[in-house]
Amino acid sequence: MRVRMVVAYDGAPFAGFAANPGVTTVAGTLTDALARVLRCPIELVGAGRTDAGVHAWGQVVSFDAPDAGFDPARLQRSLNGLCGPHIVVRSVEAAPPDFHARFSARSRTYRYRVLNSAVPNPFVRATTWHVPQPLVLAAMRNAAAAFVGEHDFTSFCKAPDRPEASLVRQVRRAEWWPDRDDVLVFEIEAQSFCHRMVRSIVGTLVDIGRGRKQAADVVAMLAALDHSGLERAAPAHGLTLWSVGYRAADDH
Amino acid sequence: MRVRMVVAYDGAPFAGFAANPGVTTVAGTLTDALARVLRCPIELVGAGRTDAGVHAWGQVVSFDAPDAGFDPARLQRSLNGLCGPHIVVRSVEAAPPDFHARFSARSRTYRYRVLNSAVPNPFVRATTWHVPQPLVLAAMRNAAAAFVGEHDFTSFCKAPDRPEASLVRQVRRAEWWPDRDDVLVFEIEAQSFCHRMVRSIVGTLVDIGRGRKQAADVVAMLAALDHSGLERAAPAHGLTLWSVGYRAADDH
Repeated sequence: MRVRMVVAYDGAPFAGFAANPGVTTVAGTLTDALARVLRCPIELVGAGRTDAGVHAWGQVVSFDAPDAGFDPARLQRSLNGLCGPHIVVRSVEAAPPDFHARFSARSRTYRYRVLNSAVPNPFVRATTWHVPQPLVLAAMRNAAAAFVGEHDFTSFCKAPDRPEASLVRQVRRAEWWPDRDDVLVFEIEAQSFCHRMVRSIVGTLVDIGRGRKQAADVVAMLAALDHSGLERAAPAHGLTLWSVGYRAADDH
Repeated sequence: MRVRMVVAYDGAPFAGFAANPGVTTVAGTLTDALARVLRCPIELVGAGRTDAGVHAWGQVVSFDAPDAGFDPARLQRSLNGLCGPHIVVRSVEAAPPDFHARFSARSRTYRYRVLNSAVPNPFVRATTWHVPQPLVLAAMRNAAAAFVGEHDFTSFCKAPDRPEASLVRQVRRAEWWPDRDDVLVFEIEAQSFCHRMVRSIVGTLVDIGRGRKQAADVVAMLAALDHSGLERAAPAHGLTLWSVGYRAADDH
């Protein structure tokens, strides 16, 4: 039976999401725990391969489990006992047989949190990038709009492993809003992202917010296709994979 | 010159606020850093002696510093460089010569945060007590009112070091409100608190919220003067010393 789970994690102690022999990863930890509970080997698929240190609130994973005795609530409790406290399985449910956490996904939404205050805050330290210089929110909002739509994001992504892979992506939304406690939140949605894309965009927008770059530079950077946005990528610990969207039929 | 600082800290890595030889404490860390920066021995006074694991957002400390070359902004930067990231000095300022962080304080406000959701949340794990059973907020609010006013809090405090010390305290406010992400916040204000008092009150109110006790039990427990409220004291990591109030003349 195909199973779908929503998983939250604090990325700090993990060398990223994807399983990788010899290091502790989110997928590796979940796969080991699933194999132990279900007593069979498991192939885990995740919607987004988050980098080392990146968090998730709504990562979605899928895998096949034996039909016999499948008990979602019990599986959730067992996994949370084995994988906590940095990983929490928020839900477990049976999914359509062709559901695939990665290939069925229609959208991914990421949030990036910036603490914009003169002094740091020990309570949001682990989940925000502390930028002490005053940021002009209106300039960041204005510049964020330049990323919306279909663009070749080569300037904002790492070179792909396969050189022929396209870095054209369609950004549906890219917006900033002020949250409490001097936190600014950036939310961006696309069907998919290329590697390091959100952090490169955030680094560029924060440079615009502190007056080091102009909104017009975004257009020039996109046109340059030169990976130039990567240089000032924002740190991993401010980024969270917030949610993953699927077809209504998969969302049942 | 008398100096006043507001200090925030994540209590997790500290064996409490008060300096204590051989263990890492907040006051010990600040005192060592002050002595290093100011190049003289420092006697640090704190408004509240928080227990091991308890956090602070608005702890207030006072001490005497040499007048010559006193530069509050520079001192703040130096201390944050030396004491971070778990301790953050939020402000530094000159205070009236008779200002005393502890004895001048007219009120202390504590907040306690409970995560009331079926599954844990990795992002508030360090600052909330996770209570998975559904809590009845109205019952907790109603019972909290029974603590307001002047009472002998013997049933909700550890026995004092000096047996003759009074455990009579005047609670000015004790209220709950729902925050986002399934968090319930309890805020309590008094001129001062005795040892373990806030956590004992919270443990009792949460027992009322899950139906294990009734609001009327609070009155009986207060009357018993038997330390019975201590048994189910809420864990330290949900508690934060939120703010300390002084006379207007000290608040300048």
